[in-house]
Amino acid sequence: MTWDLLNIIGTIAFAISGALVAMEEDYDILGVFILGLVTAFGGGIIRNVLIGLPVDTIWEQGLLLKSALVAMGIVFFMPESLIQFSKRSLHFFDAIGLSAFAIQGAIAASSMGHPMSAIIVAAILTGIGGGIIRDILGGRKPVVLREEIYAVWALLGGLIVGLNIVNGTIEYMILFICLVVFRMLSLKFNWKLPHRAL
Amino acid sequence: MTWDLLNIIGTIAFAISGALVAMEEDYDILGVFILGLVTAFGGGIIRNVLIGLPVDTIWEQGLLLKSALVAMGIVFFMPESLIQFSKRSLHFFDAIGLSAFAIQGAIAASSMGHPMSAIIVAAILTGIGGGIIRDILGGRKPVVLREEIYAVWALLGGLIVGLNIVNGTIEYMILFICLVVFRMLSLKFNWKLPHRAL
Amino acid sequence: MTWDLLNIIGTIAFAISGALVAMEEDYDILGVFILGLVTAFGGGIIRNVLIGLPVDTIWEQGLLLKSALVAMGIVFFMPESLIQFSKRSLHFFDAIGLSAFAIQGAIAASSMGHPMSAIIVAAILTGIGGGIIRDILGGRKPVVLREEIYAVWALLGGLIVGLNIVNGTIEYMILFICLVVFRMLSLKFNWKLPHRAL
Repeated sequence: MTWDLLNIIGTIAFAISGALVAMEEDYDILGVFILGLVTAFGGGIIRNVLIGLPVDTIWEQGLLLKSALVAMGIVFFMPESLIQFSKRSLHFFDAIGLSAFAIQGAIAASSMGHPMSAIIVAAILTGIGGGIIRDILGGRKPVVLREEIYAVWALLGGLIVGLNIVNGTIEYMILFICLVVFRMLSLKFNWKLPHRAL
Repeated sequence: MTWDLLNIIGTIAFAISGALVAMEEDYDILGVFILGLVTAFGGGIIRNVLIGLPVDTIWEQGLLLKSALVAMGIVFFMPESLIQFSKRSLHFFDAIGLSAFAIQGAIAASSMGHPMSAIIVAAILTGIGGGIIRDILGGRKPVVLREEIYAVWALLGGLIVGLNIVNGTIEYMILFICLVVFRMLSLKFNWKLPHRAL
Repeated sequence: MTWDLLNIIGTIAFAISGALVAMEEDYDILGVFILGLVTAFGGGIIRNVLIGLPVDTIWEQGLLLKSALVAMGIVFFMPESLIQFSKRSLHFFDAIGLSAFAIQGAIAASSMGHPMSAIIVAAILTGIGGGIIRDILGGRKPVVLREEIYAVWALLGGLIVGLNIVNGTIEYMILFICLVVFRMLSLKFNWKLPHRAL
């Protein structure tokens, strides 16, 4: 139930971030919806392929799909001032999606008996995979691979789940809240990972 | 039998459109063939992954593969004036591919008992997935997401099949012809979907 | 045993080539590791999807994964002069990866009873698939589709395996050495495939 709500929030946030990239690139309305859906569902699809879960379970997530479509429809017709204003809160909802998706991706891989490496990759891919496809389809370099600290929180979530440090719904929720807080802190203080340009 | 013929026409048209993008980007002959094959078969492959059909059935489509290879070989050695001249008719053959692939993608998803959302996505992906991969591999923004009306005809085909409005070969053929006609009209009169640039 | 060693060499070379692209694009350290892993494992993953092998077997390749991670860690902290110096030998190790991966990809497809077309595609994808994803994620046009002769050696390996011209470990090794030698010759003398720019 709690995950369901977090999933809806995260899916909507990811879909809107995809829709905004498409609008910034002047794609047409269908391109906006396609990019939004790819962002919302792409990471989970790639994760399922990689850890050996069936992919066509996404078609049972009718509620997530409809929420994403409605949200993108609203954004498409919003006044620009409101869009710019909403972008700030979008970061917060996006952090919810990142954290919720990463933890659930890790749990899914863990429950299949995969090794730690698979659990971490599942957490990262579920968290950032959609954003990578979004940027590629928008003709951009993937922002999650080079800007502020983003993927690292998904990695951390996967590590903690994989090491069985947390267990049970309440502890997962605490982990979830921590990841959201750290993501927002890293954004506010513009934390960056080490770079090494050639 | 009729579908077989339409599939060959569509596959050749898609393969040539991929080969032309590769030639415009000055890829070498192997790059030309690879981009053509990806354009012709990529959409169907992604669709099969997403709706849970086996992917390795593409290896049984030897006739389609050979047709695509021969067509690309001819284009590669064609005089440029002939290529430019052929580009006009390519749009027509491409419309055949778009419509035939979209309808068959929708039928495949529908026959698996998937919900409407999956049927529409299957139609769109089969119709435009190859073109998206083609543009990404050519270093371009996917043209089908932002230019004249293209994907919307695949969507419409998926919707009509999913709603069971048409049924049986003759009705599918009528739908197919309608989609081709509308695609060519949208090209001729440069119909566009609404944009909303940020 | 011999393949195991060649696989490690090839995986490390591919991972480093991905890491270097990420560093040239100024990605952060996590982006560097992600791009390296995608380059090392991406081709094999796509091949497995296309020829119908399970994808989650990659998680049993813990040794390959760790070798790649350690190698990328070393490169990330190497002095730049050493990196530039190592780039020459990287081509040699990369040729080992290309040849070893292509032959093994072809053997895998062949042992599943797939037709020649699938064997060649499996060889090409295993050899160059990772490099294509690397360049796309780095915001570049795929270099293997347009520069010196690269993919053609994977194609040749697939063709020879598919025609059953070689059989048994010793003959596979001779084929492997030939492919490496030809790849290095094509690099040294800057052999190119025919282009046809539009």
